[in-house]
Amino acid sequence: MSTGVRRRMGVEERRQQLIGVALELFSRRSPDEVSIDEIASAAGISRPLVYHYFPGKLSLYEAALKRASDDLADRFIEPREGPLGARLLRVMGRYFDFVDDHGPGFAALMRGGPAVGSSTTNALVDSVRQAAYEQIVSHLGVSDPPARLELVVRSWVSLAESTALLWLDGRRVPREELEIQLVHDFAALAAISAAYDAARAALMRRALKGEPADGPFTDLVTRLIALAS
Amino acid sequence: MSTGVRRRMGVEERRQQLIGVALELFSRRSPDEVSIDEIASAAGISRPLVYHYFPGKLSLYEAALKRASDDLADRFIEPREGPLGARLLRVMGRYFDFVDDHGPGFAALMRGGPAVGSSTTNALVDSVRQAAYEQIVSHLGVSDPPARLELVVRSWVSLAESTALLWLDGRRVPREELEIQLVHDFAALAAISAAYDAARAALMRRALKGEPADGPFTDLVTRLIALAS
Repeated sequence: MSTGVRRRMGVEERRQQLIGVALELFSRRSPDEVSIDEIASAAGISRPLVYHYFPGKLSLYEAALKRASDDLADRFIEPREGPLGARLLRVMGRYFDFVDDHGPGFAALMRGGPAVGSSTTNALVDSVRQAAYEQIVSHLGVSDPPARLELVVRSWVSLAESTALLWLDGRRVPREELEIQLVHDFAALAAISAAYDAARAALMRRALKGEPADGPFTDLVTRLIALAS
Repeated sequence: MSTGVRRRMGVEERRQQLIGVALELFSRRSPDEVSIDEIASAAGISRPLVYHYFPGKLSLYEAALKRASDDLADRFIEPREGPLGARLLRVMGRYFDFVDDHGPGFAALMRGGPAVGSSTTNALVDSVRQAAYEQIVSHLGVSDPPARLELVVRSWVSLAESTALLWLDGRRVPREELEIQLVHDFAALAAISAAYDAARAALMRRALKGEPADGPFTDLVTRLIALAS
């Protein structure tokens, strides 16, 4: 660029550049408010050229959402080392980083964006939920989760989603507080389920065996005992 | 009807009848799969006559959704008497009755129904969430809920929604189990929030003061203490 020579991009390179530019715009404002003209202008190309690569705004939106979904799903991947609470807390940090970076786009998507109801959009949102679910189940060391455990994990994934959405609406609570709260919520939902079932209780004891005395779970239990007394 | 005389209905009566017939059909199958022909046939009138009362399927769907939303919001109304846990458990019973009766329509709406993204549909879904939120806050005896308490209550409302949706997907767990589980989940989310804040801890102690020794909260705490030991 500094030489003043404008290199011509290849097709795939141009597509990837447009996806990046569109994702940036779709993240910062509700996708409904972003026009193809604006995307063209931000990418430094003409409107017809955008249409050359993407037949319409929906297909560009879906491509941007695909990139964002892959990114978000990757954030649930965590090395299988150390206490579970600390692992989940790191995941929550990366999750809120994502929500922080893509706020308006994330909120619009979850509350009914331009492509909502499209099977592609629904499938992408579901793929992130599924990835999160599978990561958690594998960290719990379970290969074939029974229905009740599946329900606990999936309902927590949905709780994380709605907590993030509520946070975006005004950001009235520091996100760090919600990250640790969601880790605690996970433990609580799992404990409630385990309280009525011996198999889940055994799983829970095994999973929490590695928790350190200064970890988030131990801290919570200490505080809850103080609260109950 | 037994006299063989077919009474002519007034406009509003016919509209209400059509809404009832449509809601019944939209509840039992995904609304996408229900045709105007089918609604006309179930109501015993011609297709053009349906269009006389409703300009299209979307407006009939929205009218049916309005009736269902009002019904669901009403189920959160509970007399201000007796322990909180028992009140919430009765609400959960009525909530799952509704979900049970309107399964496919409820799932389709929440996962992207025919009118999803329409501002009317979103507003109706939000009105139910808001009604549930306001009822719970008022039962807690709080008039101006701080942000963190609001977040706890709203995220629990969303947890109840996703738990019901997960239950509908195969009904692999008895609903009674989930009704009590959601009551416990509410107590746990509130307790976690209270564990880190004196004001919420005081509110929680006040709210739980009326809990009987054989109520759902006491039972849970006993079981959790056993689990932790």
